[in-house]
Amino acid sequence: MADTLRFAVLGVGRIGSIHARNLAQRSGLHGGSEAQRSGVTLAYVSDPNAAAADAIAAELGAKAVGLDEAIGSSDVDAVVICTPTDTHAELAERAAAAGKAVFCEKPLDMDSARIRRLLENVAQAGTPLMIGFNRRFDPSFAALKRRLDSGEIGEVELVTVLSRDPAPPPLEYIKRSGGLFRDMMIHDFDMARFLLGEEPVSVYATASALVDPAIGAAGDVDTAVCVLRTASGRLAQISNSRRAAYGYDQRVEVHGASGMLAAGNRTATTVTAATAQGYATDPALHFFLERYAEAYRNEIDSFINALATGIAPSPSGMDGLRAQILADAATESARTGLAVALPAA
Amino acid sequence: MADTLRFAVLGVGRIGSIHARNLAQRSGLHGGSEAQRSGVTLAYVSDPNAAAADAIAAELGAKAVGLDEAIGSSDVDAVVICTPTDTHAELAERAAAAGKAVFCEKPLDMDSARIRRLLENVAQAGTPLMIGFNRRFDPSFAALKRRLDSGEIGEVELVTVLSRDPAPPPLEYIKRSGGLFRDMMIHDFDMARFLLGEEPVSVYATASALVDPAIGAAGDVDTAVCVLRTASGRLAQISNSRRAAYGYDQRVEVHGASGMLAAGNRTATTVTAATAQGYATDPALHFFLERYAEAYRNEIDSFINALATGIAPSPSGMDGLRAQILADAATESARTGLAVALPAA
Amino acid sequence: MADTLRFAVLGVGRIGSIHARNLAQRSGLHGGSEAQRSGVTLAYVSDPNAAAADAIAAELGAKAVGLDEAIGSSDVDAVVICTPTDTHAELAERAAAAGKAVFCEKPLDMDSARIRRLLENVAQAGTPLMIGFNRRFDPSFAALKRRLDSGEIGEVELVTVLSRDPAPPPLEYIKRSGGLFRDMMIHDFDMARFLLGEEPVSVYATASALVDPAIGAAGDVDTAVCVLRTASGRLAQISNSRRAAYGYDQRVEVHGASGMLAAGNRTATTVTAATAQGYATDPALHFFLERYAEAYRNEIDSFINALATGIAPSPSGMDGLRAQILADAATESARTGLAVALPAA
Amino acid sequence: MADTLRFAVLGVGRIGSIHARNLAQRSGLHGGSEAQRSGVTLAYVSDPNAAAADAIAAELGAKAVGLDEAIGSSDVDAVVICTPTDTHAELAERAAAAGKAVFCEKPLDMDSARIRRLLENVAQAGTPLMIGFNRRFDPSFAALKRRLDSGEIGEVELVTVLSRDPAPPPLEYIKRSGGLFRDMMIHDFDMARFLLGEEPVSVYATASALVDPAIGAAGDVDTAVCVLRTASGRLAQISNSRRAAYGYDQRVEVHGASGMLAAGNRTATTVTAATAQGYATDPALHFFLERYAEAYRNEIDSFINALATGIAPSPSGMDGLRAQILADAATESARTGLAVALPAA
Repeated sequence: MADTLRFAVLGVGRIGSIHARNLAQRSGLHGGSEAQRSGVTLAYVSDPNAAAADAIAAELGAKAVGLDEAIGSSDVDAVVICTPTDTHAELAERAAAAGKAVFCEKPLDMDSARIRRLLENVAQAGTPLMIGFNRRFDPSFAALKRRLDSGEIGEVELVTVLSRDPAPPPLEYIKRSGGLFRDMMIHDFDMARFLLGEEPVSVYATASALVDPAIGAAGDVDTAVCVLRTASGRLAQISNSRRAAYGYDQRVEVHGASGMLAAGNRTATTVTAATAQGYATDPALHFFLERYAEAYRNEIDSFINALATGIAPSPSGMDGLRAQILADAATESARTGLAVALPAA
Repeated sequence: MADTLRFAVLGVGRIGSIHARNLAQRSGLHGGSEAQRSGVTLAYVSDPNAAAADAIAAELGAKAVGLDEAIGSSDVDAVVICTPTDTHAELAERAAAAGKAVFCEKPLDMDSARIRRLLENVAQAGTPLMIGFNRRFDPSFAALKRRLDSGEIGEVELVTVLSRDPAPPPLEYIKRSGGLFRDMMIHDFDMARFLLGEEPVSVYATASALVDPAIGAAGDVDTAVCVLRTASGRLAQISNSRRAAYGYDQRVEVHGASGMLAAGNRTATTVTAATAQGYATDPALHFFLERYAEAYRNEIDSFINALATGIAPSPSGMDGLRAQILADAATESARTGLAVALPAA
Repeated sequence: MADTLRFAVLGVGRIGSIHARNLAQRSGLHGGSEAQRSGVTLAYVSDPNAAAADAIAAELGAKAVGLDEAIGSSDVDAVVICTPTDTHAELAERAAAAGKAVFCEKPLDMDSARIRRLLENVAQAGTPLMIGFNRRFDPSFAALKRRLDSGEIGEVELVTVLSRDPAPPPLEYIKRSGGLFRDMMIHDFDMARFLLGEEPVSVYATASALVDPAIGAAGDVDTAVCVLRTASGRLAQISNSRRAAYGYDQRVEVHGASGMLAAGNRTATTVTAATAQGYATDPALHFFLERYAEAYRNEIDSFINALATGIAPSPSGMDGLRAQILADAATESARTGLAVALPAA
Repeated sequence: MADTLRFAVLGVGRIGSIHARNLAQRSGLHGGSEAQRSGVTLAYVSDPNAAAADAIAAELGAKAVGLDEAIGSSDVDAVVICTPTDTHAELAERAAAAGKAVFCEKPLDMDSARIRRLLENVAQAGTPLMIGFNRRFDPSFAALKRRLDSGEIGEVELVTVLSRDPAPPPLEYIKRSGGLFRDMMIHDFDMARFLLGEEPVSVYATASALVDPAIGAAGDVDTAVCVLRTASGRLAQISNSRRAAYGYDQRVEVHGASGMLAAGNRTATTVTAATAQGYATDPALHFFLERYAEAYRNEIDSFINALATGIAPSPSGMDGLRAQILADAATESARTGLAVALPAA
């Protein structure tokens, strides 16, 4: 690779714009440590919505180009795929075939078999592949994981993950989402694997449409719990809801042999009011881009760092596949009422 | 009944002594409101350990007598059964047959069929029966329930109950305990029913022996999770462990349509230390008698109040049966790996 | 002394009843450790309000008698003085002269000179004297002090004490109270001395009537701050208000060379509600008897223990005098606008 | 002014670099809202350290020039003064005389008389002047102030401000600092004025060198408390220390007629660890640039917004003067032991 890493961002919607801006901030013009700023260039952005691509290109000093050019150009080292889900696998394969490193937003595909094929193709191409499970890079969840790995609470016994969105997405989105387990709980499956330190061998899930009957009518659920079990008997419980009046609620709690590590939410301010009604603090931050702003920055830095050092990026494509397999199993379990056994990894 | 309620306490071990002392404190000598103090007499205590019975009788101004006298005496209105579990059902039936009101520590029996027969016999006798699920009377859990019932967070959607003991009981105890689901999680089944506001129709549980392999060798588990589902789709998740380095951890969290209500642990002091390592507070209270001291007082007051007003005491024998049925189902589910369906109540 | 300590409680109003009940609970009938229960008898209570004295005597199995009998009776070892302030000094002297140990509610007198004379007389009698600064026995404040003394945060540099009553007392009470500094802040002067570990040599105070102009019209204040300084330069700041919408607010914070120790309030429950408005918890406990119930029990136990072991009780009469001197100095400072210098102890 | 606001930053040390970077981020290239990005250009930076000026100019796409050019250039609308304190007044006057809007880091000068003259000169020039009291722009302190102004807790009665640095600055810095009250507590004087809503009419301070005797030997103090009183009797207490093992501690607490509003510190993560020792969380953020990063962004945005809308910037030069007067008074009070009276504003 050249002495600067040149990036192309494919898709500049909500997430793509964030990655593009974070890359530009790392590009030597503004902020960041010396190390982070050295040698990163946001070269291209690409989006079928030409106006959006032009605007962000102008803002960030990049060039808006077509997909073929973004992927194929010889002066691109890495592509960041933020396009609609059904294009992820093909674009990742094309980029890998062109020798580019790939960062791909989750999920790699809705179909596990397709993901397996993709992973084989990328492996053949020999290029790095990272999957966008941003929550691993949240400062609190990342610190919790480091402390877990340092042995602070001994061997993991029980992992509890809670995720609640402030409000359901549009019904149209839900209909094409693959269902709550694949669309929303997939993040929590990754988090549970991240924290369990072992692969689940059994999955049980049950779920309801309590928030909005229209979600149930559309064949999906909005309130769900899932239990995972690993070969050595470690347990995880996950709960999800499409509703949380008090903000975007994302918490994990890990119990080990000698204690507990827990991490939770941020509020906009530290203000406490005390009145006749009691003590009151702010709600949790409401929007996932706000909640995970720092995580997105750390995530792309981690990808840059992996490319710069030649270390395999993490979470990997295989992490993407395994979370998808858990989501598939949970979907089936919730449908049949039966726990689903998975082969030991 | 006479214008004073006269009590006999059967069994004066750890729990029996507590109930005896709380009754004595309500007996007109010391403390309590005028209402609470009026008309309560601790008349008798009974225990095969005569020395223990004599000591507590002397301390509390009661009379130590044999079981027959304690149950049969015409000047006893109510008996409080704190004897070993395998005697609960028979003593409750004898007391009811003798026309006494009965407060019985959980469980009524290890065998649901036996509990059903007991409930029929007590129903026939027409005397009040209360079961000792003390946690309902914890000030925080009770306040949470009242606020839930007041509609503060709308319809219940998800209940999470966590219980962790500081350390496992002796192995000999575990061997005769009926297993973790019947011995420990039964409290959480009652709490889940209390908070769900609907009867569970399906139970899934999975469990491991992670704390002590000897517990596994003895055929029991020490780490467990359980998922309940009601007919309308409300969900509950319960986790249990026989180990918590930081104290006796007992928490509930209820999510409803418009928010969350959560309640947790007490610490011995409010002291916070801030040092280079960060901010530190006390561990949770370590001992269940300490944690639930106030709950035990409120519980026996509730029984007294039910007898004084003629209102049926709650939790009832039926609550005891239903929790036992859930414990049986969880035990089976953990053994078979299959969710267990229960008839709608 | 006899092998049981026999107590007389003088004055059975709000505080006197509490001490009487706590003594009765220590009297061998109910609860407490073996050590605490051995050898304590509440023999007499005395109050000009004969009905009140009779009622509490009947409740607690004591005898209601006149002051002379309560103080002079040969079968009394210790008197607990809870009568109106203007009788404290004389009763304490009479009891000491009769060879009784004395526990006296604060203040010993409104007049420091009178307190000095009292201390001399008690010293001459050679009987133990303890002053009722109950807050030292609050479990959190006591634990903080122990940890401070253990060196957990190094040498003390700055002490901050905050006390706020939920609402002002009746104006008639205020008029006879000696003013906020002597009536309310005196507790905080004692707490500051307790935590500073050195005697203040300078006092500055300023105050306002912001809560109720009628308090100002009556010549008193309801909102006040005070700064203390010791010979070695340690600093303390105290704030008081007669108003706190959110309960009885009592906090301390101590900064030392290597960190901070802080202690605060209790709430009735641990319930947290999360709604669109944010997270909300209970107000602080509202009533000082509720807030300090445990402190009152520990306080009288400490007195019992001092008598049983022969160790001088603490806080001592001298502690009472020194707090009064600080209250006098603060009153003067607030009046004149000048800091008041005190002789080094 | 032109349709873009063109800025020159004078002095690109620690604070100057921050302002320069924040201005560049607002300059239309990266991030921020549409409104914030429109029309801001960082044109020039200037610093006697040419290498530093060149580096930051290169990083941010600005031009490094001499002071005269930075101030005098016709294509500069506003200067941001981050040079050493003893140059502030003269540079502010020169910039104002040249018709530039001025943002000046605190303090305007060490000498109140000099500040008065400066304010007169700037007033004559008729250009806007803003003083860099960054803490007003901390999201938590700003939100607290807004809620106070909205009447949430009624009329202000008592303000408590605490500021503790993690560790003392170099002794050489302290010697030239003007003393703790002018160098450190000046921020708290501004915060107290901000929150009191009235001008103090009396100041009492007392202070010690407890952290490092060398600070005392240099004629300064490192631990200080101050009491302010307004004409209507509102009270404020401030405490400062040059030492806090647990991070950069910055808190405010305001008591009003109907409750309390408090705001405090941030931690790096939300992780809680529970072990046998209790519950532990992170220390407070350690570095003021980290603690106030968001405040610095909001501060410069507020200046930009004032210029864009023509509203007078706040805090104003007069706010700078008043804080300085309080710092002078506190310095005198700590020296003499006497409270200092100030004329009502």
